[in-house]
Amino acid sequence: MSYNKTASITAETINPRVKTFNYEPRGEIATLAERLQEELKKNPGSRPFQEIIYCNLGNPQALGQRPITFFREVLSLCDNPTLLHRDEARMLFSPCAIKRARKIIEAMPGRDSGPYTPSQGIRSLRQSVADGISGRDGYPSTPEHIFLTDGASSAINLTMQMLIRSEEDGILCPLPEYPLYSASIILHGGTMVPYNLSEARDWGLEIFEVKRSLEEARISGLTVRAMVVINPGNPTGQVLSITNQEEIVEFCRKEGLVILADEVYQDNVYVEDKKFNSFKKVARSLGYSEDDISIVSYHSASMGYYGECGRRGGYMEICGFGEGVIGVIRKVASVTLCPNIGGQILTSLVMDTPKVGDDCFERFLAEKENIHSSLVKRAKTLEDAFCSLEGVTCNKIEGAIYLFPRIHLPAAAIKAAKIEGVSPDIFYACRLLDNAGIAVVPGSGFHQISGRNRASGTWHIRCTILPGEDKINEMIPRLKAFHEAFMNEFRDRN
Amino acid sequence: MSYNKTASITAETINPRVKTFNYEPRGEIATLAERLQEELKKNPGSRPFQEIIYCNLGNPQALGQRPITFFREVLSLCDNPTLLHRDEARMLFSPCAIKRARKIIEAMPGRDSGPYTPSQGIRSLRQSVADGISGRDGYPSTPEHIFLTDGASSAINLTMQMLIRSEEDGILCPLPEYPLYSASIILHGGTMVPYNLSEARDWGLEIFEVKRSLEEARISGLTVRAMVVINPGNPTGQVLSITNQEEIVEFCRKEGLVILADEVYQDNVYVEDKKFNSFKKVARSLGYSEDDISIVSYHSASMGYYGECGRRGGYMEICGFGEGVIGVIRKVASVTLCPNIGGQILTSLVMDTPKVGDDCFERFLAEKENIHSSLVKRAKTLEDAFCSLEGVTCNKIEGAIYLFPRIHLPAAAIKAAKIEGVSPDIFYACRLLDNAGIAVVPGSGFHQISGRNRASGTWHIRCTILPGEDKINEMIPRLKAFHEAFMNEFRDRN
Repeated sequence: MSYNKTASITAETINPRVKTFNYEPRGEIATLAERLQEELKKNPGSRPFQEIIYCNLGNPQALGQRPITFFREVLSLCDNPTLLHRDEARMLFSPCAIKRARKIIEAMPGRDSGPYTPSQGIRSLRQSVADGISGRDGYPSTPEHIFLTDGASSAINLTMQMLIRSEEDGILCPLPEYPLYSASIILHGGTMVPYNLSEARDWGLEIFEVKRSLEEARISGLTVRAMVVINPGNPTGQVLSITNQEEIVEFCRKEGLVILADEVYQDNVYVEDKKFNSFKKVARSLGYSEDDISIVSYHSASMGYYGECGRRGGYMEICGFGEGVIGVIRKVASVTLCPNIGGQILTSLVMDTPKVGDDCFERFLAEKENIHSSLVKRAKTLEDAFCSLEGVTCNKIEGAIYLFPRIHLPAAAIKAAKIEGVSPDIFYACRLLDNAGIAVVPGSGFHQISGRNRASGTWHIRCTILPGEDKINEMIPRLKAFHEAFMNEFRDRN
Repeated sequence: MSYNKTASITAETINPRVKTFNYEPRGEIATLAERLQEELKKNPGSRPFQEIIYCNLGNPQALGQRPITFFREVLSLCDNPTLLHRDEARMLFSPCAIKRARKIIEAMPGRDSGPYTPSQGIRSLRQSVADGISGRDGYPSTPEHIFLTDGASSAINLTMQMLIRSEEDGILCPLPEYPLYSASIILHGGTMVPYNLSEARDWGLEIFEVKRSLEEARISGLTVRAMVVINPGNPTGQVLSITNQEEIVEFCRKEGLVILADEVYQDNVYVEDKKFNSFKKVARSLGYSEDDISIVSYHSASMGYYGECGRRGGYMEICGFGEGVIGVIRKVASVTLCPNIGGQILTSLVMDTPKVGDDCFERFLAEKENIHSSLVKRAKTLEDAFCSLEGVTCNKIEGAIYLFPRIHLPAAAIKAAKIEGVSPDIFYACRLLDNAGIAVVPGSGFHQISGRNRASGTWHIRCTILPGEDKINEMIPRLKAFHEAFMNEFRDRN
């Protein structure tokens, strides 16, 4: 019997594109943390700490952040619309949630939350999103340009699928980057064209550096199709100034690049002197219309004060694309039939929250501000803690949910890492987890090290600000003690 | 200013792979139906019918099928777990739903339904799915081999991504086919290798035909990696016999092909003498283990008696893959972070329904059997109706939710279609919609016509059995009158 093993699927015969990329936030450290957690369960006294503090994943509700009551009430009612006809429901749900759920259900196909929806999402929910955008920006948005998606990551993958024809198509991406971009570009067979953010200028985006990268890519024969900008930044936490955004718009317009604007942290800004501005708003305020520049804006229900990561709700707004392109996007979206309904509903709620006068407004506002002010406090506390460490520099966290401190590692630590065959930042992060029970993501997971990179040879970690205040207070002495011991072990002796 | 228009995205510069495929169930007829619906709303007297009867999409709840109460109660409670601590909840939810929701929430990260989950899905829910499979098949299943997904379509896309390296990789697919397969293969840059189902043998699958197709593909230089089997069939409604499944298993084992088993209609079997058997069960009963053959089984929460399409819940069970491959699948799944939580929960419920003795068991069973027996009745009624039409032959619907009648179109109708520049089945389907308000999908949307196809020159429509019984009773006279008029207009006169 000829068992044709070569054609069956093995690690050798799998599509090589799925093998080559790395997605570090869910990689080695996450696996190590899982193992350590198991060990602590079996043998609680085995370490000088009782539990791991997770600063590796942007997953707020896994760390105790409470969901917004209004959102959950509406979801719960929409899941079981028979409740809307029951008097007893008024004992369990606010009138304002009942009203909103009724409105949503009435606009649904079959007046229930079960059927497939159009692949672009339910029109009435897209209308809520478009109205939310118009209110935010002061420039009109239309439901025809909104695609509801299973989180922003699905929208990003969909865009890459549209843009990338072959490895000769390039996409400009920031370094350090959120590694979903490189993963998605590799999976779709394109080429990532990295540009460096400037750590010396608070991780600012410098146009001359983007231009350098674009020109190099063009000389090497690439057609560069789009530029990814993450604002507020992941993992860098910077919020772009409006002047900087204007430069980017002018640049992309001149060079014919689509702006892929990752704006999922738009509700995470922590400093008084910075404000989130969408790229669409900036382009419109410069007088550019649909005909002048193409912009895709990604947003999701996963971050902000809502933090509903597992719900997989998100949208993309596409501006400056012709009807032909929109039709093709709709067709490609139909291959997975439709985004999940719960995520669609939640996304509409995030963009259309309770208003002054609604019975649930005060509770909503209190919950929202409580989360926001706590994030501001945690950001500051952690920033101060990192800055107080020997050989660590840490930029101000203006937005998003991450600190990205630089660890100036002693030569002996770098040597020790080399002996173990790992990158020095991974060496540091593994030690931090193993000795102090603090999980962070090594900076190399965000590809901040590249041959072209001026920051080559610098080492960072990404640390979220998401553990609760009590946990952060518990974590800081552990971090300080670990770092001191680490430096004592490896300190350069001249 | 050099506005480099060539690099921006237009219908001309979009990835050509996203342009070439068709996904007809959401294509032209759906658009026409939408337009007609609008017209009827504005001008209700404009047609001899008041509303469109939708037999084009497999979307039961959009057509009035009620959801299973137990499923929705559990989802509703999991969305808002604070309800689990409220006494009043007992007035609105069954004890058995409260108990299940409590069990689900307790096993979740952060004890809430908001966080990201592992990209493979929550372990306890995968355990429920694995237990359901073990109970169904009588052979063990393990949560390590279950991937929860956003519906079966995401799982199918993920598999194609793993298998397809270049256009030299081929995937065997049945014709007529569910066009998601060809779309996904084209999007991932591979080649579809079609094999014909035999209409003369109740759309049976003949191994000699699959062999012919495989050999032709190999001669043309393709590496054929997998064979798609849809059982029960879409659009053909056949249920494979166990002997036939055994032949397929032996064939794929011998040829080193992965079996991609689309088993989403496993709870839709309508005939006494046929029973659903999973391909895994058939392989195990032949004595083949994990080491002998690779099988992927797809299932979802969208079909069966549950019909929760918009929830996007599903799973794939992967058997006979090495740890290396499973690790890569996990990594690729992590690029969209995790499947939506509502869909994950629902999928676990579909595979772990209330048992005898549970307080909600009787209600659950009554709802389930009510839907099932109505589907049996509707299948028979529609089958008889089609068989009674002049020049129409229609195979028995054994399973799934579709009829696929063949329309023997008169030469004059084929000529008229040619003049209009459309395929004759599209011509018929458009007329049926326009004149009688009945939406079906033309057979060419399932690619049953191909150069190689022995059935070339045959014309079909796919008609779901999903409209309610009252609607079907309203539809049949409309169908008969339309068909008679159509035949009178075009009948061959010798």
